[in-house]
Amino acid sequence: MNMILLQPDDFGEGGLAVLSDGRARHIRKVLKAEPGKVLRIGLLNGSLGKGTVLSVDKYQVCLQCALDAESPPMPRVDLLLAMPRPKVMKRLWAQLAALGVGRIVLVNAGKVERYYFDSHVLEPGFYNNLLIEGLQQARCTHLPEVLVRQRFKPFVEDELDGLFGNQLKLLADPSSEKRAADHVQLADPSERVLLAVGPEGGWTPYELDMLQEHGFKLFGMGKRILRTDTACIGLLSMLAEVLNHR
Amino acid sequence: MNMILLQPDDFGEGGLAVLSDGRARHIRKVLKAEPGKVLRIGLLNGSLGKGTVLSVDKYQVCLQCALDAESPPMPRVDLLLAMPRPKVMKRLWAQLAALGVGRIVLVNAGKVERYYFDSHVLEPGFYNNLLIEGLQQARCTHLPEVLVRQRFKPFVEDELDGLFGNQLKLLADPSSEKRAADHVQLADPSERVLLAVGPEGGWTPYELDMLQEHGFKLFGMGKRILRTDTACIGLLSMLAEVLNHR
Repeated sequence: MNMILLQPDDFGEGGLAVLSDGRARHIRKVLKAEPGKVLRIGLLNGSLGKGTVLSVDKYQVCLQCALDAESPPMPRVDLLLAMPRPKVMKRLWAQLAALGVGRIVLVNAGKVERYYFDSHVLEPGFYNNLLIEGLQQARCTHLPEVLVRQRFKPFVEDELDGLFGNQLKLLADPSSEKRAADHVQLADPSERVLLAVGPEGGWTPYELDMLQEHGFKLFGMGKRILRTDTACIGLLSMLAEVLNHR
Repeated sequence: MNMILLQPDDFGEGGLAVLSDGRARHIRKVLKAEPGKVLRIGLLNGSLGKGTVLSVDKYQVCLQCALDAESPPMPRVDLLLAMPRPKVMKRLWAQLAALGVGRIVLVNAGKVERYYFDSHVLEPGFYNNLLIEGLQQARCTHLPEVLVRQRFKPFVEDELDGLFGNQLKLLADPSSEKRAADHVQLADPSERVLLAVGPEGGWTPYELDMLQEHGFKLFGMGKRILRTDTACIGLLSMLAEVLNHR
C-alpha cells in the first residue's frame, strides 16, 4: 500500500479522518506509524495529499488530512474484455486498477463459458476491494467503472457507440501485422482509447466482423499466445507507453 | 497448453514418443484427442512440429512426431531481477517463459528479505515445471536459463560483464524521463538486451550507482508504482514491441 485511499464518508469535520478497518491495521502494523508521521493519502476519484497521524490505537487511527496535491491524471484507456475464467479475473482486478483503466466492460463471447458470469468475482463488493488495492499500490485515485454484459450482440449494436463513440478502438489480434502505434500515430493526442481483448480461444469470425464494423482496428503484438491476464497487462503497458509519447 | 513440449528422452525409434505424465492426461482429457488427431509439438530448445496420435489409453499416449518446422526465434531479452517475495515469484515463472526471456538472474538487493532465497520456488524441480507450462502456453521451445545469486556485489563485479558484456543494459527506474526506445534506437538491430528490475522498495543508491557503472542505462515507464510481477510483464511486453520494430 503506497497510499491510503479515503472515501468522502471517511471525513469528519476539519479534514479529520478516523479509520478502523484494514487501512488502520496497515498503518499500525505495516507502516508502524506513530503520532506525527505523515502518510500519503488520496481521495477516491479526487486529489492526492498528506495525512498526519494524530493518534493510533488497537481500534482506530486518526488522521489530519490535507488534500493539497493534484489529482493523478485520468487513465486514457478503457478495456473491453471477453470475460476470462473467474480465477484469472480475480488476479486481474487489482492489476487493472494499478495499470490505470477508466472503464472495464466484461462481455460475453462465443468462446466464453456461460458459468463464468455466475462467479462471485463479478460482485461489486468483491471487486471494488481489489480495485482499491490496485489504486493504493499505484498511487492512483480513479476507480475504474465496471460494466458486465452477458449478451455480446446487443452490447455491441446498442451500447458500444454510445459509451465509446469517439474513441480510437483497438483490437489485439495475434494474426495482425499492424502495430498499435500505427493507429495511434494518426489520432488526436488527447483522445481516449478502447482496447478489446478476446477470450483465450479468440473471438469468433462473426464477433471479429461485428467489432470491426463498429470501428475496431486490428493490431498485433507478436505471435506468442499469452494467458488473458498476461496479455492484458502487456497490452495496457505497451499502450500507455505509446500514448504517453505521442 | 497450445503445444506439447517434448524432451529428447521422450523419443524412441523413428520419431515415436510415448507419454504417460501430465501431458498424456492433457491430451486425453482436455484435447480429447483420438487416434489420427494431429497435435502441435515442440522439442525443448529445438524445433516445432506435428505429432500424430497413434493410440490413447488410460496409461499412455503414443505420438508419431515430425519436427519439421523452424525453431521459434530466440528471445532477445534477459532479465536481472531482484528476488521478489516467493508468492510473487511463483506467479511469475510461467509468465516469464511465455513472454520470452533468454536468461533469468535472481539477485539479492538491500531491500530483498534474506529468507526469500530459502523458498522452494527457487528449486529447479519446482520452477522448471512452471517454465515449461509457460512455453507450452506461448508455443515457444526456449527454456530460460536460471541463475540465483545471493550476493549482489560479487555478482555485479565479477560475473555480470562476463555473462552480459556486450548487451544493451536497461534499468527500469520510475524517476527517469528517458524511454526504453531512446536507448534501443541507437543499438544494433540484432543486439540482446538485459533488463534490470529492482525490488518493490527500489534499488539502494549504492546499488543504482554500481549498476550504472557497469553500463546500465536508466529509463522510465510512467509514475505508477507497480507490483513486481505486473512491472515485469509490462516491461517485457513493451521491450518486445520496441525490439520487434527497430
